[in-house]
Amino acid sequence: SGADVELAYAGLDTFLKSEPRGVGDVGDVDAAVFGVPYDNAVSNRPGARYGPGAIREASEWWAYISTYKGQLTNMWNGEQVDFDDISVADVGDVPLFPMDVETTAESITAHAATIAEQTFPVMLGGDHYCTFPAFRGFAEGTDHDSVGFVQIDAHTDTVSESPVFGADFHGSSTARIADLPKADYDSVSQVGIRGYESAEYFEFAEDSGIDLYTMRDVEDRGIVSVVRDAVESAAEDTDAVYVTFDIDGVDPSVAPGTGTPVPGGLTARQALLTMSVLGSHDAVGAVDMMEVAPRYDSTEGTERLAAYLLVKLLERKFMV
Amino acid sequence: SGADVELAYAGLDTFLKSEPRGVGDVGDVDAAVFGVPYDNAVSNRPGARYGPGAIREASEWWAYISTYKGQLTNMWNGEQVDFDDISVADVGDVPLFPMDVETTAESITAHAATIAEQTFPVMLGGDHYCTFPAFRGFAEGTDHDSVGFVQIDAHTDTVSESPVFGADFHGSSTARIADLPKADYDSVSQVGIRGYESAEYFEFAEDSGIDLYTMRDVEDRGIVSVVRDAVESAAEDTDAVYVTFDIDGVDPSVAPGTGTPVPGGLTARQALLTMSVLGSHDAVGAVDMMEVAPRYDSTEGTERLAAYLLVKLLERKFMV
Amino acid sequence: SGADVELAYAGLDTFLKSEPRGVGDVGDVDAAVFGVPYDNAVSNRPGARYGPGAIREASEWWAYISTYKGQLTNMWNGEQVDFDDISVADVGDVPLFPMDVETTAESITAHAATIAEQTFPVMLGGDHYCTFPAFRGFAEGTDHDSVGFVQIDAHTDTVSESPVFGADFHGSSTARIADLPKADYDSVSQVGIRGYESAEYFEFAEDSGIDLYTMRDVEDRGIVSVVRDAVESAAEDTDAVYVTFDIDGVDPSVAPGTGTPVPGGLTARQALLTMSVLGSHDAVGAVDMMEVAPRYDSTEGTERLAAYLLVKLLERKFMV
Amino acid sequence: SGADVELAYAGLDTFLKSEPRGVGDVGDVDAAVFGVPYDNAVSNRPGARYGPGAIREASEWWAYISTYKGQLTNMWNGEQVDFDDISVADVGDVPLFPMDVETTAESITAHAATIAEQTFPVMLGGDHYCTFPAFRGFAEGTDHDSVGFVQIDAHTDTVSESPVFGADFHGSSTARIADLPKADYDSVSQVGIRGYESAEYFEFAEDSGIDLYTMRDVEDRGIVSVVRDAVESAAEDTDAVYVTFDIDGVDPSVAPGTGTPVPGGLTARQALLTMSVLGSHDAVGAVDMMEVAPRYDSTEGTERLAAYLLVKLLERKFMV
Amino acid sequence: SGADVELAYAGLDTFLKSEPRGVGDVGDVDAAVFGVPYDNAVSNRPGARYGPGAIREASEWWAYISTYKGQLTNMWNGEQVDFDDISVADVGDVPLFPMDVETTAESITAHAATIAEQTFPVMLGGDHYCTFPAFRGFAEGTDHDSVGFVQIDAHTDTVSESPVFGADFHGSSTARIADLPKADYDSVSQVGIRGYESAEYFEFAEDSGIDLYTMRDVEDRGIVSVVRDAVESAAEDTDAVYVTFDIDGVDPSVAPGTGTPVPGGLTARQALLTMSVLGSHDAVGAVDMMEVAPRYDSTEGTERLAAYLLVKLLERKFMV
Amino acid sequence: SGADVELAYAGLDTFLKSEPRGVGDVGDVDAAVFGVPYDNAVSNRPGARYGPGAIREASEWWAYISTYKGQLTNMWNGEQVDFDDISVADVGDVPLFPMDVETTAESITAHAATIAEQTFPVMLGGDHYCTFPAFRGFAEGTDHDSVGFVQIDAHTDTVSESPVFGADFHGSSTARIADLPKADYDSVSQVGIRGYESAEYFEFAEDSGIDLYTMRDVEDRGIVSVVRDAVESAAEDTDAVYVTFDIDGVDPSVAPGTGTPVPGGLTARQALLTMSVLGSHDAVGAVDMMEVAPRYDSTEGTERLAAYLLVKLLERKFMV
Repeated sequence: SGADVELAYAGLDTFLKSEPRGVGDVGDVDAAVFGVPYDNAVSNRPGARYGPGAIREASEWWAYISTYKGQLTNMWNGEQVDFDDISVADVGDVPLFPMDVETTAESITAHAATIAEQTFPVMLGGDHYCTFPAFRGFAEGTDHDSVGFVQIDAHTDTVSESPVFGADFHGSSTARIADLPKADYDSVSQVGIRGYESAEYFEFAEDSGIDLYTMRDVEDRGIVSVVRDAVESAAEDTDAVYVTFDIDGVDPSVAPGTGTPVPGGLTARQALLTMSVLGSHDAVGAVDMMEVAPRYDSTEGTERLAAYLLVKLLERKFMV
Repeated sequence: SGADVELAYAGLDTFLKSEPRGVGDVGDVDAAVFGVPYDNAVSNRPGARYGPGAIREASEWWAYISTYKGQLTNMWNGEQVDFDDISVADVGDVPLFPMDVETTAESITAHAATIAEQTFPVMLGGDHYCTFPAFRGFAEGTDHDSVGFVQIDAHTDTVSESPVFGADFHGSSTARIADLPKADYDSVSQVGIRGYESAEYFEFAEDSGIDLYTMRDVEDRGIVSVVRDAVESAAEDTDAVYVTFDIDGVDPSVAPGTGTPVPGGLTARQALLTMSVLGSHDAVGAVDMMEVAPRYDSTEGTERLAAYLLVKLLERKFMV
Repeated sequence: SGADVELAYAGLDTFLKSEPRGVGDVGDVDAAVFGVPYDNAVSNRPGARYGPGAIREASEWWAYISTYKGQLTNMWNGEQVDFDDISVADVGDVPLFPMDVETTAESITAHAATIAEQTFPVMLGGDHYCTFPAFRGFAEGTDHDSVGFVQIDAHTDTVSESPVFGADFHGSSTARIADLPKADYDSVSQVGIRGYESAEYFEFAEDSGIDLYTMRDVEDRGIVSVVRDAVESAAEDTDAVYVTFDIDGVDPSVAPGTGTPVPGGLTARQALLTMSVLGSHDAVGAVDMMEVAPRYDSTEGTERLAAYLLVKLLERKFMV
Repeated sequence: SGADVELAYAGLDTFLKSEPRGVGDVGDVDAAVFGVPYDNAVSNRPGARYGPGAIREASEWWAYISTYKGQLTNMWNGEQVDFDDISVADVGDVPLFPMDVETTAESITAHAATIAEQTFPVMLGGDHYCTFPAFRGFAEGTDHDSVGFVQIDAHTDTVSESPVFGADFHGSSTARIADLPKADYDSVSQVGIRGYESAEYFEFAEDSGIDLYTMRDVEDRGIVSVVRDAVESAAEDTDAVYVTFDIDGVDPSVAPGTGTPVPGGLTARQALLTMSVLGSHDAVGAVDMMEVAPRYDSTEGTERLAAYLLVKLLERKFMV
Repeated sequence: SGADVELAYAGLDTFLKSEPRGVGDVGDVDAAVFGVPYDNAVSNRPGARYGPGAIREASEWWAYISTYKGQLTNMWNGEQVDFDDISVADVGDVPLFPMDVETTAESITAHAATIAEQTFPVMLGGDHYCTFPAFRGFAEGTDHDSVGFVQIDAHTDTVSESPVFGADFHGSSTARIADLPKADYDSVSQVGIRGYESAEYFEFAEDSGIDLYTMRDVEDRGIVSVVRDAVESAAEDTDAVYVTFDIDGVDPSVAPGTGTPVPGGLTARQALLTMSVLGSHDAVGAVDMMEVAPRYDSTEGTERLAAYLLVKLLERKFMV
Repeated sequence: SGADVELAYAGLDTFLKSEPRGVGDVGDVDAAVFGVPYDNAVSNRPGARYGPGAIREASEWWAYISTYKGQLTNMWNGEQVDFDDISVADVGDVPLFPMDVETTAESITAHAATIAEQTFPVMLGGDHYCTFPAFRGFAEGTDHDSVGFVQIDAHTDTVSESPVFGADFHGSSTARIADLPKADYDSVSQVGIRGYESAEYFEFAEDSGIDLYTMRDVEDRGIVSVVRDAVESAAEDTDAVYVTFDIDGVDPSVAPGTGTPVPGGLTARQALLTMSVLGSHDAVGAVDMMEVAPRYDSTEGTERLAAYLLVKLLERKFMV
């Protein structure tokens, strides 16, 4: 009946209107969502602390249409998509200590690990630094010996040490990940990179084994082919792949709600295809959506796209 | 420990970070909050459908400071306030049918009644039409023979029948309430009225028994004295008083996030004192906060004040 | 002289600064514009009630440049365009009854029919539900036995009955149209569809005869070819074609000012080419521009594009 | 019937939904409104070119309520107000030449004079420079030998010659007026002045005969008493009084939509009382509302107040 | 000549268009301004990192009018104000390390001390935590044995240790100051406090010697009297007084551009009078303006008022 | 050390955090930047007066990353870019006289000439009229006999005389330039033109020798090829080329912060490639960035792209 269908803008806000759960109680669901409303590690505009709430709210449109329409048709390929095929839980936000990045990172790692022991983790950021402790938690919580990393991003985040920020900030997360025992630059793939990066970055990528796909590669080869190679390379010689999507990988005209935009990025369609390819690859074992700072986008388009991108990966992974 | 204190902007959004509950399961709490994200009955700017979510989010600041500071001091009068003295539950939003005002009203009435049977109801609007079905539910759910009505508002909402909107819209709610068997204009008090109203309104108020306090009365006599008289009059010869606060009772410079603003209203301090007086009166048995349309106020001030006003009434009623 | 050229932002706002006229007095003009500032039938964000006013204001740029520059050159193809070749009247907005969808629909139908009896109707929305009564009015006001329908849109609007909204809301308008005696799904063409639709929609389209062109088709075949086929198919076996343009057919990065955006839509150029093709087809007998909700786009880009799209169709139809 | 009542946000935008008229055809109405969307003479933030349109739109709320409620009660004093007692026409906007201030001023003067010959002129600005040519037109169009001037404003606008702007800009309009043969500083009253003005301004005011009422005077003596004295003084020894209301006379927290705000101004209530007093004085023969720059106030509060202030003056003058 | 007068919105942005200088080169000016664009120590909304830039820009209006008008009249009291009587330098922003609060505090202290050795320091914040290191620097840079503290604020900032933030964040700055050897709660005066504070705060204030003036005191006694007492008390038994103005001391309707607003604060006029009284007291030796987060106030009113408040204090101190 | 790296949002705002200099003291730098915060010559939305300040602020991101990362890699082509290879000075804003276009133009010309005598000039607009006096200054300040002109723009700006604006406004600048002794339409190339232009514009371009590249040409031939031809043609038979970039050449979805947007323009990537090609051509001797009106783009994307486009041209010219 109508009373069973809640409007997208009504009700308590959880990701896809999923059930609120304790972090230790997600063993029976396909995916568990957690938020990290932290943005003290940014080098430019703040506001990603409002990302998790905004993505949750935006996600509810898909909960609404799947409840009221039942099974759905994916209008890109005609496939049938059944939202009843996926069970999701939302464990809320991780405890954070804005003045203490180390304790914050430990909290994120602990929660990510606890979830990863039980199910597929989905993290809502928060600034991109948080991907490092989340990856660490994923690696610890699962029994994988090695974990690959696919990074959709405008920036490489490979700064070792910043004179202003030190070793731990949103420009160093991939470097921190590569330092971990279960990770290696050789299993890192980067897609959407543009603008300026550190000196001799092409050489660094080649030497360290990073699979680097700049926006020019996307332009030249097409997004589907690029992402297929990216995930394949990250999955090679690893037990699982962690996917991180920095929303600034998308063009600022499409997703302006982020702290460090770089003109010349992915279109919405390219971003959606990226998630389709990634969701179709068996190795993908975790995903995050980072750097959504909704207050720079009064149209609400950034969080809507961010939610849709997660839905798209989950669709491919669990619903078809 | 720090992990027990959730930042105001973190976590799932419920009123005062209270526990989500089913509507039938609030018998053991002091107050139960429900939302009505409906604004199809407005005659001017839409957007009150976003009121409940915004008020919930804004309310979390008080949950945060009371958790991290423990007991609090009310800095107006020095009294100690203990948020642990109140238990609140949030039952989420009522099912709504935007194209069908009658079914929507029945849904609101049913939920309000179910809650009123068990505890003190707090409604988050939504447009002011919803106060009619909520009042009806309160009257039905309790065993009161007669219920008084204190209305803080710029407008009187006493239109019987509009040529455009008919009998049911946000300009007619007080008229609909007065038609109910347990209510009467004689037990209605209105505070903050200004601008233009129907012809001969002063005479109508006098004849029908409405206690009318315009902004000029507030100016001349002081808000505390006016509200004391207003609630006293509504409580006289009734078993309980329902308080409705239309946020447009407050001046648009203070609370611009509403659909039908009228210059010349209450200051924030006057509004807070209003709620202090009302919260101190034993007869008050229900409260709502209506017409908060947050998207017209990019500063977030409207929903912050709306939440604070409810906190203030609850403080006086339950926490001192 | 200069006094004869009114700045785009000056003067009373009518579409293309055309003459205000009564609805019964448009027999001598090429096109008559009417507005339907109604958005109570939406399932998501309100605000299309502000569409007609915003489109009118935005349209005045073209009135300004054609007055001060005289004849113009279309810079896409070099053709000469003469705004003096078209006479337009603006009959203002149709009476609406926000709480009463049926009476509202009758009012729209009556006005659309009155105009269609006399000239080419241009409707400014308003939510997409209003297209149903406008189409009905067009069919009634003209003597056509059957009317085709070209729908530019992100959504199919083919819900028969929603558990929340019933049979009449902005997601059901195409279904309601197909029910009309002079219409049939077989003469419906849909362009720009994306996201998720009802189960087995491709099969439904095929079975019912809908000409379905998703964004993937646009991507694969090019917009000009797709729209040519779309209008050709709608014109086949009908006496005239009604064109509806839901602004959410355009990508949200280009036209965020709408209630139900779906990432991955038309570019501005594709949208303009769409209108060029449609305006060049003799069968097109009416057009509307729907779901413009300007307050979600503080850049004013959505209404500017909406106005330009109508200008483009009228250019092809009347000015070259 | 309902079809006769147009919603506030519907229909073509004229002041109070009045009839559009030619400037020479207003002899039979009580008041004629004209706009001057010009802001090239400002020394700070532009945007008053959007004032006339915004004030018109905002004014329509009062047209709506008076149409649907019929006669109204003024809720400040209980008096009956009949909008049918006033006939208004809107002649649209005056031709303007943004690069040519002299021709622009002549155009304003000519239109103001033409209207003043026939009826009570109401000008919608536009920056405050435009008050000079409008006053000149009023003086010329009527047969008055001398005209007084009441200026509600944060600034005195008495700069004779600016090194950057010359003699003609929005800081010099009162000086230009005082130069006119039919005007004199001795018949100028200024209310709401604050911040910093030219050296020895108190002495200048005293010497030149300006009746100066700063915000401190308003604070000390009350707005009603101050405005009564102000208009009385301007009316003394003159044949009529021209009232100019610079919206920056109001506090920026109440009316932020203006180019040159100065903290510490009038409240909405003080502003409304100002207009009540002025509207009650027989000598008042013209009014303008200037410096409304709506795009700095996303709440729409500035234009709403501006419209209400004009309504209030007209109420006192024509409707009671 | 005109070329010597720069428009308020033109030119490089420094406070009052003063000369950029090195921090060690301000011995010959009356006051030196420095910025601390740091907001990592906030407990709620970020954005005070944009405070210094916004206050500088807003301040230029006063530079413009004093250049083009020459000597000015203070329109509140008629006194002559000569901006040529004050020489100001702007040393830009202090080096900051967002991830390292200790090093950041040391940097602020070092710069504040260097300036205080030479002249009157004016700090532009930044979040309120920065007042602690700035006060420390002022105490160290001067040879005062003890320094008083006048705090205009909604909050007391006297948290010793937060479970989430630890000992160093914007809620603990006054506690940190009171710990310093040259300071003591006994020389602290707080004005504008409201909302909720820690348990038994009135007793704590009394016991520790804090002069506490809540908004109720301001209401009851008048702002001038309260501030006179506040500064007198802070100056008693100290060698100098440091004034901190948290912009959230002002009401959110007036100054919404701040991170932690509390309804019910100072009006603009009360705030200006506060600065007049403080600027007139000889003991005042330093001032800061904190928590201006301009992006929450699209009207630009918050930074305008913040700049004006500093101008007002400097006017009283140096220009009359 | 960290103290040497200033955050992008910290410090005094100059282009690329370059040294402020007097206009006569730029002989030893590679490029000198000056601003023209003037927008009184626009025919539509004002606000380009805020362009120079916004572009300066946005440019500081590149100063920050080049300081903290040292040498950089251009991620499009892998080349090394060294910001130490370029020395830039910022001379602030030119004196402007908003009411006097002729004196304003002379001021711009004088400053542009003074700079051009010494180094490579970079102008930050301001409306596009200012390009005429800047071009004139460049031609006068250098000893070139003839100067070519490459114009990236949505509009041709070739109006000879407007009935409203006369001969000098932002729609006539290219016509005014072509009138100059050292310039000729034959050396003008226009890229990105779209929408409607004057009658028979294609013929006019052909007859006058303008190299016209509409958006359709860009679409058909690719941006790189088009811009190569454009600059080659402008450089042929001239001594140097002046490049003007009207930000409305870019699509409004990417750069909405401008006064006269036209849908269907360049993508960010096309714009960046345009500047790469132009920066690589030896003949280019001056550049400007015009019509940036930041307040129409709350995302800050327009000024960010504008700054990046200038950085890109300077990179190709001076840093590789």
